[in-house]
Amino acid sequence: MRVMGVDPGLTRCGLSIVEGGLGRKVTALAVDVVRTPPDLDLAHRLLGVADAAELWMDTHLPEAVAIERVFAQHNVSTAMGTAQAGGVIALAAVRRGIPVAFHTPSEVKAAVTGNGSADKAQVTAMVTRILGLRVAPKPADAADALALAICHCWRAPLMDRMAKAEAQAAAAQRRYAEKLAEQRKAVRR
Amino acid sequence: MRVMGVDPGLTRCGLSIVEGGLGRKVTALAVDVVRTPPDLDLAHRLLGVADAAELWMDTHLPEAVAIERVFAQHNVSTAMGTAQAGGVIALAAVRRGIPVAFHTPSEVKAAVTGNGSADKAQVTAMVTRILGLRVAPKPADAADALALAICHCWRAPLMDRMAKAEAQAAAAQRRYAEKLAEQRKAVRR
Repeated sequence: MRVMGVDPGLTRCGLSIVEGGLGRKVTALAVDVVRTPPDLDLAHRLLGVADAAELWMDTHLPEAVAIERVFAQHNVSTAMGTAQAGGVIALAAVRRGIPVAFHTPSEVKAAVTGNGSADKAQVTAMVTRILGLRVAPKPADAADALALAICHCWRAPLMDRMAKAEAQAAAAQRRYAEKLAEQRKAVRR
Repeated sequence: MRVMGVDPGLTRCGLSIVEGGLGRKVTALAVDVVRTPPDLDLAHRLLGVADAAELWMDTHLPEAVAIERVFAQHNVSTAMGTAQAGGVIALAAVRRGIPVAFHTPSEVKAAVTGNGSADKAQVTAMVTRILGLRVAPKPADAADALALAICHCWRAPLMDRMAKAEAQAAAAQRRYAEKLAEQRKAVRR
């Protein structure tokens, strides 16, 4: 499964492509950081980020796009730009028929380091080790984009099984309700 | 000048088209509210909003798109969705070569009611009066989208003049600095 990891942002947007293999085997195929100048207007900054991400989608043809879910941050105006960058990338993916998943920072940290509150250095160190890289990816946004793709490779099968199990449970409950209704009708006759 | 006003949102996104004429004359050409179901995933909700806004751009061919600038709200997760909806619309406009402007809620309120902290009812009442509508636009998102477009029609000429004046001032300062540098050189010789 080929996954595109996105650490969204306007100043720096991390992009990665990771190929997930059997079990926990993952291989990095590409990683980069897209930058847009802070003095550019918002719409053109979004254009820069979207153009780069769409070129990656059309070049690497990922089967899924994993984006970091943005929460309220210390800096609210930065969080808005980050959310918007993630939004335009999610839209580009869905328009190409590529499924989009959002993972929270703590889900990503927990997946790659085993600790949901790991710091940036720990995430970078584990990403370097898991992917067998010779040098640590830099800046932190590049490492985060790789971590997101790894997290998705490992969580996606689990999320699929969970969704199937939930669907089965819902179907069973529906059948039970129908049966019950029929029996009640039979009793009334 | 034909302006598309956007009150961004995922649950309800207000869209309007207003034609600005001479002086403060403005005419409403279209207004609607796009809704996406809250149980749909984020990427598909963004798709619904973007598809609708792009259809409007391609049908009404606005010369400018005015979007409400989102700030931290009481509900942070709503603010993120709102910011993302605004982001995908800004990107769609810039890809069509349409200039995008962001106005804050208080700029919009001040423009249409004269009071930057007017309430929703006051904004709706003034929008109805300014546009000479027989019935008040509903829901509030529709009135807000109209208010945004009116605000842009009235502020755009002023913003243009400001930008030109700033550019002139910057050019004058640059010429002065060059002259000063030349004179200093001359003194040294």
